[in-house]
Amino acid sequence: MRKYFLRGLLKLASSRVGQRSSIQSLMMNRVSPALFLDTVNSYQRTAAIKAAIELDLFTAIGEGHETSQALALKCGASERGMRILSDYLVVIGFLRKKRGRYGLTIDSAMLLDRRSPGYLADAIEFFLSPMLTYGFSDLTAVVRKGGTLLPEAGTIAPDHQVWVNFARAMAPMSAIPAKKIARLVDKRPAQKLKVLDLAASHGMYGIEIARRNKRAEVVAIDWECVLAVAKENALTAGIDNRYNTIAGSAFEVDYGSDYNLVLLTNFLHHFDMTTCERLLEKVHAALTPDGRAVTVDFVPDASRVSPPGPAAFCMTMLGTTPNGDAYTYDEFKRMLGNAGFMRSELRPLVSNFQQMIITYK
Amino acid sequence: MRKYFLRGLLKLASSRVGQRSSIQSLMMNRVSPALFLDTVNSYQRTAAIKAAIELDLFTAIGEGHETSQALALKCGASERGMRILSDYLVVIGFLRKKRGRYGLTIDSAMLLDRRSPGYLADAIEFFLSPMLTYGFSDLTAVVRKGGTLLPEAGTIAPDHQVWVNFARAMAPMSAIPAKKIARLVDKRPAQKLKVLDLAASHGMYGIEIARRNKRAEVVAIDWECVLAVAKENALTAGIDNRYNTIAGSAFEVDYGSDYNLVLLTNFLHHFDMTTCERLLEKVHAALTPDGRAVTVDFVPDASRVSPPGPAAFCMTMLGTTPNGDAYTYDEFKRMLGNAGFMRSELRPLVSNFQQMIITYK
Repeated sequence: MRKYFLRGLLKLASSRVGQRSSIQSLMMNRVSPALFLDTVNSYQRTAAIKAAIELDLFTAIGEGHETSQALALKCGASERGMRILSDYLVVIGFLRKKRGRYGLTIDSAMLLDRRSPGYLADAIEFFLSPMLTYGFSDLTAVVRKGGTLLPEAGTIAPDHQVWVNFARAMAPMSAIPAKKIARLVDKRPAQKLKVLDLAASHGMYGIEIARRNKRAEVVAIDWECVLAVAKENALTAGIDNRYNTIAGSAFEVDYGSDYNLVLLTNFLHHFDMTTCERLLEKVHAALTPDGRAVTVDFVPDASRVSPPGPAAFCMTMLGTTPNGDAYTYDEFKRMLGNAGFMRSELRPLVSNFQQMIITYK
Repeated sequence: MRKYFLRGLLKLASSRVGQRSSIQSLMMNRVSPALFLDTVNSYQRTAAIKAAIELDLFTAIGEGHETSQALALKCGASERGMRILSDYLVVIGFLRKKRGRYGLTIDSAMLLDRRSPGYLADAIEFFLSPMLTYGFSDLTAVVRKGGTLLPEAGTIAPDHQVWVNFARAMAPMSAIPAKKIARLVDKRPAQKLKVLDLAASHGMYGIEIARRNKRAEVVAIDWECVLAVAKENALTAGIDNRYNTIAGSAFEVDYGSDYNLVLLTNFLHHFDMTTCERLLEKVHAALTPDGRAVTVDFVPDASRVSPPGPAAFCMTMLGTTPNGDAYTYDEFKRMLGNAGFMRSELRPLVSNFQQMIITYK
């Protein structure tokens, strides 16, 4: 009803005869170009967060440099530049401002102040690597084609260096969800546990399980160049004697067998459903009868347009992969069912951002 | 108080000794990387709105192509690409989605459907011209320097072609505020009125006054190449016999005298305060004793961080001009007062976006 009312109004408003009609004026008067201009200029948001990180502005504010003058001095920049950048960061939600003084939000303090153990700002080296951003340089052509214009298979090409950046940058961001998963999937951490970590990247998900359970052993699979990062992290965590690796593609290498847990963290979204099912069959075969697969991923709801973070994630897959996607829980259940799994449970992991699916063989 | 509490917490949380402290875990658990990742990836928003306009997706939906399949067929694109793009446009606020069918918001219908008289999507040719976007390719260096890295004076260089694009693209968007201004500043449109339109661009602000008042005469000043667009628009409006132009810089050319109105629409933000005052003195001298200056601009409140549109506009000035800014109403009053003006009135023009200042000589 509302739709037809709107469509009728629009038809009237856009008819050339009715160009001076009062309905058109009425509608045009309540129309705002604000969202359009904000979106067209969104590339400036990217530039602003990058500049703030490169200038180490968040650390400077955390240390008590709270005016644009003090920040300019501390960061070796102009006062005008620091004022405009800092005000802009307030507008887009990274800073607070009170009586001319800037302060960090809790998120900025924990994630963007270099002194915080949760510092993840180096992740821009991955997210803004030309390898990824180039995927959006002609999105019109990408939409026409239906997949990435990046050479070969985009970011899923073998031994792609972008995943070394990813592994280095994302370890801090993964520490919290990794701890949470370890608690949830290994409630009695005294029992023997054989864990397979597919496309392990930094390895943090498997490593946290091994840190918590002294009898857990981890086998990590990823490209050779990426496994070097995971091995460093295993060494730092002091679990390297229970950490083994297999270099290569998770689609090709032999996993071995009798795993109690298989971790599929931020991996399946790179592939189409048929490819995912093929992989899940291999996972199913590698598990013990009481084994579980643990998927961590962006899971939009059935509408595919919320929550915003997981829903928007599809766009990254469109620009950078041939067939990747963000799958709904129903789609995950269908793929897991087709691969032979019995039942799944959906659990929130990072509020409104990532979810965890625990699946029983 | 709150600040010191937060700082204390952060200090505890970031101390290496306290790395496993419960306070740190508590804080890290409520921290979300969502805003950070959304902002880092904001360049994808720019790419998405550009692709949607280039594919004419909004017009296609307005015409009744409401599924990703129908849109793919209509726009000559892939279904996967259209689905992901359309879902993304729902997430960022340009479309609605209900039972798998997409619909236009009122703003999108009025501004982005090519059949609407308010269609302004061609404005991306201006906003995303490499001339502007290049100003943000190294924002860190811009902030260090305190002004644009664009060659010469950035976008304020003489005869800059970017303003021809601007004039062509922005005319539709200016029609509504231009009509509103004409009504507000010329309440008895039967009296003789001499109007000076500085940096006239498309000329719509002066042209609307002349359309409404048959005894109004307009003198428009801008670069020669830009005035060609204004003259076309004056001809289309049927007021070309009362439309005169002076080619050149508003800082250099002779205005003539005895103007009842001087229009300063989206012009002062390109310059520093001293430069603005110099211009305003010239404006003051060109007005009749009962004359008025009408400024249209982005006017953030005293905090400089709201409303978001005007506050964020500073960033465009940082990236593309040597010294431009978005001035608060107090700053406008100070500049106008220093130039000899008596008093001003602030009026909303486009809700939360642009404002109008009427100043009396």
